[in-house]
Amino acid sequence: MRQRLEKGITQVYTGNGKGKTSAAFGLALRAVGRSLKVYVIQFIKGGFDYGELYIVKRLPNLKLEAFGRGRFVTEVPPTKEDVKLAKEALALAREVVSSGEYDVVILDEINVALSLKLIGVDEVTDLIRDKPDHVELVLTGRDAPPEVVELADLVTEMREIKHPYTKGTPPRKGIEY
Amino acid sequence: MRQRLEKGITQVYTGNGKGKTSAAFGLALRAVGRSLKVYVIQFIKGGFDYGELYIVKRLPNLKLEAFGRGRFVTEVPPTKEDVKLAKEALALAREVVSSGEYDVVILDEINVALSLKLIGVDEVTDLIRDKPDHVELVLTGRDAPPEVVELADLVTEMREIKHPYTKGTPPRKGIEY
Repeated sequence: MRQRLEKGITQVYTGNGKGKTSAAFGLALRAVGRSLKVYVIQFIKGGFDYGELYIVKRLPNLKLEAFGRGRFVTEVPPTKEDVKLAKEALALAREVVSSGEYDVVILDEINVALSLKLIGVDEVTDLIRDKPDHVELVLTGRDAPPEVVELADLVTEMREIKHPYTKGTPPRKGIEY
Repeated sequence: MRQRLEKGITQVYTGNGKGKTSAAFGLALRAVGRSLKVYVIQFIKGGFDYGELYIVKRLPNLKLEAFGRGRFVTEVPPTKEDVKLAKEALALAREVVSSGEYDVVILDEINVALSLKLIGVDEVTDLIRDKPDHVELVLTGRDAPPEVVELADLVTEMREIKHPYTKGTPPRKGIEY
């Protein structure tokens, strides 16, 4: 049976620690477990291979679209292509959110797209303000701007207490990606 | 093809914020997406209905066992039964970790079992010290004791910045459980 949320809020997962995207995917897992419909839109990421994708494809009621160029934008200065992709991701986010068709909409790494100025903060605050009441909106990524934190209902900072990797340690398949 | 980790570490997700268990489940999703084997052992929780279970059952290579009494122990003083269940969970954790059969072992809410003194901190630090090198161990729950933080390789604190719920607001199906 099609379930709906009675009341959706806006959640933000930010900070320099691990687990922001994973927390959003964990939430997606819970939601689809309850027959809610979930749409994940990934900013920055995409175009490369990562573990979640193989399973996400097999989950019912979960759609995912990634807008990136196979690398993290943060490694080099953003290009026109990065701006274009981020704008496309935001346009899709607007469409998906305003349709009210999806109960949970996850905008993964949107805070990073904001801090790189690939998209404007007003566009995102409008998205939050205009969302249908029953839609749960989840924004992830470090450096969430104060305007977004201000508008959000639930904000969690993932704070790195301890991290084993020195620069250059390769990420591990199945754990980091 | 059966994948293995070359090197597993110990991760801790703690703090008073949201997303600790979700981050662990998100990591599980990524790992099984890479054909790693995952075992989730839930302390405290269990015996009640929550969203992840419906999906987790459908995931390949993921086992889950919950040791709880259908309520959060923290609501009332722990009983002998709570201690017994926590000890059983820990015994299973030892067996699963030492077998080396599972690449990722998640001990969900074990920090809460520790802070309630359902199990002893030495038992958990021994578990961390004795784990096979290729096993990734993930411990979640608020109030991780300093001994555990000290031994862990990667520690993230989920910090509550903003929370909309006042006491008595019912949790939402598909989002909070």
